[in-house]
Amino acid sequence: MHSDVPPHASAVTIALPAWAESAVDWERRYDSDEDKMRVAIALSRINVEQETGGPFGAAIFASETGRLVSIGVNSVVRLNSSTLHAEVVALMLAEQQLASFSLAAPGLSPHELVTSCEPCAMCLGATLWSGVKRLVCGATRSDATRLGFDEGPVFKASYEYLAHAGIEIAREVCRAEARAALELYRSRAGPIYNP
Amino acid sequence: MHSDVPPHASAVTIALPAWAESAVDWERRYDSDEDKMRVAIALSRINVEQETGGPFGAAIFASETGRLVSIGVNSVVRLNSSTLHAEVVALMLAEQQLASFSLAAPGLSPHELVTSCEPCAMCLGATLWSGVKRLVCGATRSDATRLGFDEGPVFKASYEYLAHAGIEIAREVCRAEARAALELYRSRAGPIYNP
Repeated sequence: MHSDVPPHASAVTIALPAWAESAVDWERRYDSDEDKMRVAIALSRINVEQETGGPFGAAIFASETGRLVSIGVNSVVRLNSSTLHAEVVALMLAEQQLASFSLAAPGLSPHELVTSCEPCAMCLGATLWSGVKRLVCGATRSDATRLGFDEGPVFKASYEYLAHAGIEIAREVCRAEARAALELYRSRAGPIYNP
Repeated sequence: MHSDVPPHASAVTIALPAWAESAVDWERRYDSDEDKMRVAIALSRINVEQETGGPFGAAIFASETGRLVSIGVNSVVRLNSSTLHAEVVALMLAEQQLASFSLAAPGLSPHELVTSCEPCAMCLGATLWSGVKRLVCGATRSDATRLGFDEGPVFKASYEYLAHAGIEIAREVCRAEARAALELYRSRAGPIYNP
C-alpha cells in the first residue's frame, strides 16, 4: 500500500578518513599552542591533498599533559553530513573516547579545542557545550570567507559569551600556515559547500 | 614504552533510542505546522518519559508532500555526546537518508526543520548549513532557560542572518504543548547537562 515510502535512516556512523589516524603522533607531548596548532593545520592540509573534505582540521588536547585526545577533519562532503565540521568531529570523538558528554566532567583534567580556522556559528556553540576550557584558532573568519565559505551568525558578542562562560580564547596562532591550507584548497578549486 | 597511552576513538555511531521509530507515523501526510509540531513535541515528551534524554524533539519534513523524512531526540546524555541535540540528530538522519549534505541540493524538493524548542546557538548554525527552507519552533528560548538550560550566543541578529539566507521562520507553534514537555522534565528532575 505504501511502496512509495522510502525506508528511513535510524543511525549514522561517523568515521575519520583512512589516512587520518596515522597522520598524527599520538604519543608525544604537545607543549605550546604552536605545537598543537600544527597538528590541526597538518590535518587541514592533508584533508585537501587527499580530497577527503574541506580545508579544516581540529584536535582536542588534555591541557595538563599536552596529550592528543582526538582529531577531526571536515567531513561534510565525504560523509554527506552538513554538521560534520572538523571541530564537531573532534569533539564527538573526544567525548566518545572519554565516555563523557562533557570534557569538563568531574575527574577530568581540562581540555582544549585547537582548530585550524575560527569556528562557524554552529561550532562556536558546540565549543560551549563541550566543556573545553580553551579554544585556540589559526586562520580567521575573513580568511575563510575570502574563499567563499560562510561562517554564519558569529558576532563579537558570541566570543564574549564564551569568554564569560570561562573559556579562554587564543586567535591567529600560526595564522599564515593555517591560511596556506585554505589557499591550497582554493588553488585546487575544492567545492565550497556552504556558499 | 607507551602503555599509558589510551587507544583513541576513530568512529562514533549515532542511533535513535529503540522506542523512537515506532512512535511516529511515517506514512501519513502532515499538512499544517501544528500537525508537524505535534510530532516534535511527542518525541520530546516520550524522550522524557523513557528517560532517554532531554525534553527536546525535532523532525524534518518534505514541504511539498508533507512527508516525514527523519526524526531526532536529544541524545546528549544517552550517547555521551554534547552535540547531539534533537535538531542535529534529525538533520544528520535526513541527510543520511537522502545521501546529501544539503537538503537543498539540486533535485530535492524543499525541506523544513520542526523543533519542539527554539534552537540553541549550535543548532541555529546547523539549521543554516543544512539547507532547510523553513524553521518551525515550539517552546521559546525563555521556556528553556527557565528550566536552567543555556541556549548560548543566540541574538536577534542570528535569526535575521537565517532569514537573510532565505530561511522562513515560524515561532511559538503549539508553544503551550511544547512547554508542557519541558515542565514534565523539570517535575521529574531530569539532568540539566548544560547549566
